[in-house]
Amino acid sequence: MPQPDHLIGLDLPVPEMPAEPDLKKYFEKCLEKIGFVPNVIRGYAARPERWRAFVAMYHALMDKDKSKLSPLEREMIAVVVSSVNRCYYCLVAHGQAVRKLSGDPELGEMLVANYRVAKLSLRQRAMLEFAWKLTETPWLIDEPDRAALRASGFSEEEIWDVGETAAFYNFSNRMAATTDMMPNKEYHKLDR
Amino acid sequence: MPQPDHLIGLDLPVPEMPAEPDLKKYFEKCLEKIGFVPNVIRGYAARPERWRAFVAMYHALMDKDKSKLSPLEREMIAVVVSSVNRCYYCLVAHGQAVRKLSGDPELGEMLVANYRVAKLSLRQRAMLEFAWKLTETPWLIDEPDRAALRASGFSEEEIWDVGETAAFYNFSNRMAATTDMMPNKEYHKLDR
Amino acid sequence: MPQPDHLIGLDLPVPEMPAEPDLKKYFEKCLEKIGFVPNVIRGYAARPERWRAFVAMYHALMDKDKSKLSPLEREMIAVVVSSVNRCYYCLVAHGQAVRKLSGDPELGEMLVANYRVAKLSLRQRAMLEFAWKLTETPWLIDEPDRAALRASGFSEEEIWDVGETAAFYNFSNRMAATTDMMPNKEYHKLDR
Amino acid sequence: MPQPDHLIGLDLPVPEMPAEPDLKKYFEKCLEKIGFVPNVIRGYAARPERWRAFVAMYHALMDKDKSKLSPLEREMIAVVVSSVNRCYYCLVAHGQAVRKLSGDPELGEMLVANYRVAKLSLRQRAMLEFAWKLTETPWLIDEPDRAALRASGFSEEEIWDVGETAAFYNFSNRMAATTDMMPNKEYHKLDR
Amino acid sequence: MPQPDHLIGLDLPVPEMPAEPDLKKYFEKCLEKIGFVPNVIRGYAARPERWRAFVAMYHALMDKDKSKLSPLEREMIAVVVSSVNRCYYCLVAHGQAVRKLSGDPELGEMLVANYRVAKLSLRQRAMLEFAWKLTETPWLIDEPDRAALRASGFSEEEIWDVGETAAFYNFSNRMAATTDMMPNKEYHKLDR
Amino acid sequence: MPQPDHLIGLDLPVPEMPAEPDLKKYFEKCLEKIGFVPNVIRGYAARPERWRAFVAMYHALMDKDKSKLSPLEREMIAVVVSSVNRCYYCLVAHGQAVRKLSGDPELGEMLVANYRVAKLSLRQRAMLEFAWKLTETPWLIDEPDRAALRASGFSEEEIWDVGETAAFYNFSNRMAATTDMMPNKEYHKLDR
Repeated sequence: MPQPDHLIGLDLPVPEMPAEPDLKKYFEKCLEKIGFVPNVIRGYAARPERWRAFVAMYHALMDKDKSKLSPLEREMIAVVVSSVNRCYYCLVAHGQAVRKLSGDPELGEMLVANYRVAKLSLRQRAMLEFAWKLTETPWLIDEPDRAALRASGFSEEEIWDVGETAAFYNFSNRMAATTDMMPNKEYHKLDR
Repeated sequence: MPQPDHLIGLDLPVPEMPAEPDLKKYFEKCLEKIGFVPNVIRGYAARPERWRAFVAMYHALMDKDKSKLSPLEREMIAVVVSSVNRCYYCLVAHGQAVRKLSGDPELGEMLVANYRVAKLSLRQRAMLEFAWKLTETPWLIDEPDRAALRASGFSEEEIWDVGETAAFYNFSNRMAATTDMMPNKEYHKLDR
Repeated sequence: MPQPDHLIGLDLPVPEMPAEPDLKKYFEKCLEKIGFVPNVIRGYAARPERWRAFVAMYHALMDKDKSKLSPLEREMIAVVVSSVNRCYYCLVAHGQAVRKLSGDPELGEMLVANYRVAKLSLRQRAMLEFAWKLTETPWLIDEPDRAALRASGFSEEEIWDVGETAAFYNFSNRMAATTDMMPNKEYHKLDR
Repeated sequence: MPQPDHLIGLDLPVPEMPAEPDLKKYFEKCLEKIGFVPNVIRGYAARPERWRAFVAMYHALMDKDKSKLSPLEREMIAVVVSSVNRCYYCLVAHGQAVRKLSGDPELGEMLVANYRVAKLSLRQRAMLEFAWKLTETPWLIDEPDRAALRASGFSEEEIWDVGETAAFYNFSNRMAATTDMMPNKEYHKLDR
Repeated sequence: MPQPDHLIGLDLPVPEMPAEPDLKKYFEKCLEKIGFVPNVIRGYAARPERWRAFVAMYHALMDKDKSKLSPLEREMIAVVVSSVNRCYYCLVAHGQAVRKLSGDPELGEMLVANYRVAKLSLRQRAMLEFAWKLTETPWLIDEPDRAALRASGFSEEEIWDVGETAAFYNFSNRMAATTDMMPNKEYHKLDR
Repeated sequence: MPQPDHLIGLDLPVPEMPAEPDLKKYFEKCLEKIGFVPNVIRGYAARPERWRAFVAMYHALMDKDKSKLSPLEREMIAVVVSSVNRCYYCLVAHGQAVRKLSGDPELGEMLVANYRVAKLSLRQRAMLEFAWKLTETPWLIDEPDRAALRASGFSEEEIWDVGETAAFYNFSNRMAATTDMMPNKEYHKLDR
């Protein structure tokens, strides 16, 4: 039984190539840079205004110098948040990113399954514990949780970034759940 | 023992009035329109680039004609999501919005405590059940959940909007938790 | 859509003024002292014998010199227990009591939403942590939990009182849930 | 390693026979009727005023004609509530009561472990499902839960009694947890 | 209403005495040694090949010199795992074993209800905490959990045995749940 | 930071090739058939008697004609149980088996992340729902759960097999957790 071939499970038109010039330009850049348009980018284009806000926030957090966290750290948070939330789309897409950025395919698989089995630096471990707790029981986050990050060397801005990155994937996991969004098949084979 | 007087609990400079022209203009508009700058607006200004993305997304979801949901429906979702997550900031700020938009102060209090005690239309009830489940157990959201919204009259775009609004407050609840953000005292007395 | 106008959601006669002389006297005293009869008092009058037991237990715990805890401490426990249990009736009624006894309206709102954001003395914090855990997972209460209260200065009788007060609101929260009891509208505006 | 020989784990004087005439009379009646004083009665005597309220409420719910529920039904609720809360004292004391009242020792053991394995009438099953849910997630109790009891033949007063009985054992379970109360050894051998 | 008289709740033939010589011999030995065939042994005989694997694993873990844990320790783990999983069959059968091996009927009852109320050696307590956590949240088991066992004097092989014994009862609890297996009535009266 | 290079995290000798003739023969067969010895086989060899019981049970459930379920169905259950329990070892090893047996790499990834996103037959869906519930809340398994399997066409023996297969992976997940067992690196690249 072949797996779902819809891109999103809501009955909304998802363009192969959008008419809006800014979206179109972005799609073309994706095709040029990575050879495909990530399905979240295509799926979100069903709502162009929302697309702009979502894409802007993504870049404000994930672009090269926009965060105090390293690119790998940001993707590790993405995977661990998505692991709590059991989000297929984000585990596939960001699992691949961890495999690529770390050069360590097992690490990607470990974070998908259970980050506690991975060999991590103390900094990484503290970061992922915060992200897990913030995702699962945000109401229990309290001063000792921030203090634990500080004790592991995180600056105030880095704490903000750990939290905002985790918060963002709590957002996108729920968009994938709402819309039953399917990831591009390309991710599965990359960086194994 | 007076309650916390910090605006955020991270040691980052939170400007009374930011230097960046676009932020400054926004602050001034807040003061003009509602008499104070919401603390989330001031707190986020510690990171101007993030501020821009956050404020843009807020407006893309919450501005008058930007969503298929009514303003009250959006605020009801904000409160119920924040109730699951026990987010003090958002319960105070959006609880006030529900009181104001509904003209029904009790409704605001009910949604803060437990939406199940409120007298709701079937549409509102279905919407809040989706928002609760998407917040608490996003991994259990499945086709029957979307079908339940459709059966209550929600269009495909409205389903998207229920989900994205709930997702957005799952984001902002976690920012408030990470930064220990305190709401403006003004909210407490409004629209009782 | 106006909120429920029933006092309780069971189809039992709830007297405006009961015939039983002792109940009648109590109702009159309420009217005299606070200007209204709390709905729990009216609702419980559907079962006069139970009313007597409930009211007696309430007074044995909450009357001025009957407990080793201060009146504010008792009400703080009431609100936090009701926050775990998401009990609308008790959050409204005892939230008001915390606002009044503390002279700190924000404190009342904080305990409704999430006591962890409040600025508390170590004694208050230890007390509320015990009340939360006793409510949520009573089977995990063990010697270290009592020891933590002792280390925060609680005497043996005070530990009993923290526990019995929390236990009592676990009782009354469940009565409100069973009967779908609505609080008096008067509470909403008081002590803001 | 012999099991705990304390009656309660708080350092409060627990009288063999209390000085207060009303308590003394009650203790003597226990000795006369069942041959021992239940430890909850002795333990609570550390606080005579509270003892009076607790004992009064117990009798208002559990005495022969005071409830619309049969004595067995009340004890079944006591055991199932205590099973959710994993309360050793109440499982021992009320497990014995179920064994005795039902003449069915296995039923007592089943309700201690997991009521779902027992062969129950539809009425009993509906009653225990309500009691379980009211204990575990009181915030989810809603109109359909009351309707399910009505559909199983429960009157409005009986619904009240199911709820108040369950609420009472939620109270007493938490008193046993707070005070680390140990049950009388006599219960273990009775009605096997 | 008499309790279920089925041995298992699946419609599969459960032999009084099986035809297979090895199973028959085992049944006869049970009758000779303890006077009855445990229902799990009879029930599993519906699937003779599975019976052999199950019985072999049981003996590899529970026979006299096959484990580094004492017979009582193994049975304590069985009861506590079954307490988390609320498995009636195993609580009855292994509760009796704890009563017998410890000579302490109360201990058996305590482990059924909530091991935290029992008076235990530090070694026993550490062992049961590991078994509880491994049963309830196996994904949270991490190096500190193994370290806690080591600090309580457990050797590496003993840690393995604590884990494998707990794992085995997680298996058998789920077989009892799947098949609705009822324990022999004989257990109820033994070793009280 | 390279990932853990231990095979198990307990300090027990894990042979490259065991001395016991039966184990040795089995290892050699693994090398011959799949080119490596699965780490669970090597790790368990630290305890040869337990190894025999574990391997026998594995084959009684998983060998070609030993179960009423298809090989793919058994592996699907293995993955879903391990997904509930977040067991890295079993997700890697049995995820690969699902990829191979189904010829559908995405299906393997979906079951690791969240089986609800996969396109499944009604029979598969019913089977996985039972396995999930039996794993997460075995105490809630009741007659309607068996009835749901029957309604999806499962025979009594197949219901047994669904349950026993799920039970077995609940066992092995907990062994992997106890021993911190790492899967062979070979699995990661197979059948993508």
